[in-house]
Amino acid sequence: MSDALTAAVGLNNHFAVTQPGLFARRIEAFAPEEAVDVLQSLPDATLIDVWERLSPDLAREFLAVLPEKLTATVLSQLAPTALVNLFSDMEPEVRATYLQFVSKNVRQEIDTVLVYPEGSAGRKMDSRILTMRPTDWVEDALTRLRQHHNTRVIYTVDDDLHLLGRLTLEAVALAAPETILESLAAPVEVVVNAVDPMEDVVELFETLNIEDVPVIDINGRLVGHFEQRNMAAAIHSDSTSDLQAMVGVSRDERALSSPLFAVRKRIGWLQINLLTAFMAASVVGLFEGTIAKYTALAVLLPVVAGQSGNAGAQALAVTMRGLALREITLRHWFRVTWKEAHVGLVNGIGIAITCGIGVYIWSGSLGMVLVISLSMVLAMVAAGLAGAMVPIVLTRFGQDPATASSIILTTVTDIAGFFSFLGIATLLSDLL
Amino acid sequence: MSDALTAAVGLNNHFAVTQPGLFARRIEAFAPEEAVDVLQSLPDATLIDVWERLSPDLAREFLAVLPEKLTATVLSQLAPTALVNLFSDMEPEVRATYLQFVSKNVRQEIDTVLVYPEGSAGRKMDSRILTMRPTDWVEDALTRLRQHHNTRVIYTVDDDLHLLGRLTLEAVALAAPETILESLAAPVEVVVNAVDPMEDVVELFETLNIEDVPVIDINGRLVGHFEQRNMAAAIHSDSTSDLQAMVGVSRDERALSSPLFAVRKRIGWLQINLLTAFMAASVVGLFEGTIAKYTALAVLLPVVAGQSGNAGAQALAVTMRGLALREITLRHWFRVTWKEAHVGLVNGIGIAITCGIGVYIWSGSLGMVLVISLSMVLAMVAAGLAGAMVPIVLTRFGQDPATASSIILTTVTDIAGFFSFLGIATLLSDLL
Repeated sequence: MSDALTAAVGLNNHFAVTQPGLFARRIEAFAPEEAVDVLQSLPDATLIDVWERLSPDLAREFLAVLPEKLTATVLSQLAPTALVNLFSDMEPEVRATYLQFVSKNVRQEIDTVLVYPEGSAGRKMDSRILTMRPTDWVEDALTRLRQHHNTRVIYTVDDDLHLLGRLTLEAVALAAPETILESLAAPVEVVVNAVDPMEDVVELFETLNIEDVPVIDINGRLVGHFEQRNMAAAIHSDSTSDLQAMVGVSRDERALSSPLFAVRKRIGWLQINLLTAFMAASVVGLFEGTIAKYTALAVLLPVVAGQSGNAGAQALAVTMRGLALREITLRHWFRVTWKEAHVGLVNGIGIAITCGIGVYIWSGSLGMVLVISLSMVLAMVAAGLAGAMVPIVLTRFGQDPATASSIILTTVTDIAGFFSFLGIATLLSDLL
Repeated sequence: MSDALTAAVGLNNHFAVTQPGLFARRIEAFAPEEAVDVLQSLPDATLIDVWERLSPDLAREFLAVLPEKLTATVLSQLAPTALVNLFSDMEPEVRATYLQFVSKNVRQEIDTVLVYPEGSAGRKMDSRILTMRPTDWVEDALTRLRQHHNTRVIYTVDDDLHLLGRLTLEAVALAAPETILESLAAPVEVVVNAVDPMEDVVELFETLNIEDVPVIDINGRLVGHFEQRNMAAAIHSDSTSDLQAMVGVSRDERALSSPLFAVRKRIGWLQINLLTAFMAASVVGLFEGTIAKYTALAVLLPVVAGQSGNAGAQALAVTMRGLALREITLRHWFRVTWKEAHVGLVNGIGIAITCGIGVYIWSGSLGMVLVISLSMVLAMVAAGLAGAMVPIVLTRFGQDPATASSIILTTVTDIAGFFSFLGIATLLSDLL
């Protein structure tokens, strides 16, 4: 190797050791062959550190072009969970050829994890946990921690692998070597079941300030755990999925999902939206006579509905976020709806004034100004109430407050907008 | 104390020590006086652990009813950042009476932190960092860590407090006592400046798998840090704030903010929305003649606009989330818009069929069926394109992809819906 190349490889290694996450992100931008060249230059332990941080689909791409020696290194040292991710979408025959590189123990573990349903805690948990007996010494715990440099918590268990307590690395590191673990162990207050949905696990980390959560199987045996430091991406992903749920897109669609997947996941709610659109249209139909006389009403109709739609969406967003962050609960329903009705009234008056001026300039009809101003205030109060109540009512009936909330809300705001505008226009038609 | 009470207090203490976060959550539900009674029964160190996890507004409420002795305990031991939170909304006179309980050093630190602007990293950072010299021994580092049981990282600094490297608790705990820190320290690759906005810090934790980020001042001196384990709530809150930004609500409004605050923060975008609604209405105005002849068009108009609005919102949600999770970047613009156009076409055909059947039943007019079906497909393709492009174009021009994206999108989908429906109706008016 030339000196410059040696230096470059040294630099690479250094970067990969200290920032495996950043390093993984960088090589994800390379073509698979280039990425493999870089990976090949890393020491084994570092290579594994980096590999575990690759995005799963790219890891699969890279694996396909890996030379056999490197394949053996990666597959024999990767954590079982990482292997499960790598293998889960593979054809059984392809998987079988790869599985020969994996030790028998780990193959069994993979089978265990693959038993749990897709999307469950068991599928995603880290099964590389460190368990010890309550009567073991701190000294031995330190030795074990040195071997398992990937974990920061030790669980104490009985002979049947039932969870007794937990010890953090700090507690162990800062204790005298001749202490027994029992005297340092704290009880575990929160556990999850391996079959629980992954969203429940993420929610625990979102709402409680906890460092790790052990996972138990149906027999109450400890089978894995989650650590907070690995949850940032999951929390980010889960929190942003409300965006999709509220407009009738499933939480598992991704920006680069196939069009067919997207169509399948979205068309159901679109058909329901069509039904609600017909309901709103039938309100307009009630006033066809009035519209036939004053076509200007048809022109202004979208203005009232559009404003109440946006005002309702604002109330919905704030209320849904409050529920998601646990800043409000169902107990607050009155305070929140009262606030939103209040905001709807004040904003409604503000918008009615601007809108009245605009309509006067356009039509010169004071009657039309009166009709649109009155209906604007009414529609925006209704929108505020509906925006606050839709997620609260969904939660009250045990539903996810995000589910299709935007579709439900639009139905309400359209109908409120059409009714108030055309209704008031019909009542005051002498002034038009 | 009775035996039962002793036992109850013991149980309380145990719970508070092992799960201070859960404990804080429980007592938040109590009346302030009750909560204070419980807090009073805790040992000092535990009390502080719990107090630091109280939600800031409740901490302020509890402080007001705290007996003087407890006030002294809390204020003299609380971290400077917690004190800053506690004091930031207070009247200066009230703050002055509380500040007398705080040591001179900490008062200076509070002044330092209060120097940084609201919402900056400096305001929120943890200033209780552990710094040592690169030539110090592991043994001394362990002693320091035992004293600062709240931190898990040691930063090595030079004489001017310039950052040299970092060591994790694990590295220190698992090393031989006679090692010097320099040989264990890893370089720090990511730092933030104290004046950087807090959102940048949260974004670092969302996208990089990092444990902590040091904060430096304008002189490059280390002044504080953030640790991943304290960021879950911030990530959750930041991720969900997109919901608000996209409908023109500021990210800092909360579900229980005052109505006046909400009005001030929302009315600006509502007025802009009114302007765009007038633009959309002016499209309808172009076709007033056609509508005057066929009022059925006015009835069906909201159906086309409503469908394209919802389809566009779906495309927007998926694309925005992809950008937020960094699953896509601007490089993917073509793939994403192509996907969404494709989805719009297929869903458009699916919806056009159902819609055509509905309209035939209602109107019995095959001409009307043709008009609404054609325009539905067209409007939904346009909605898919717009939903994908709005956040991409906003990002391209250096804007936050969420900002008012929903308001911009609705304008596009309304205009596309009105134009395609009324335009095709005018072209094919012989068939109506």
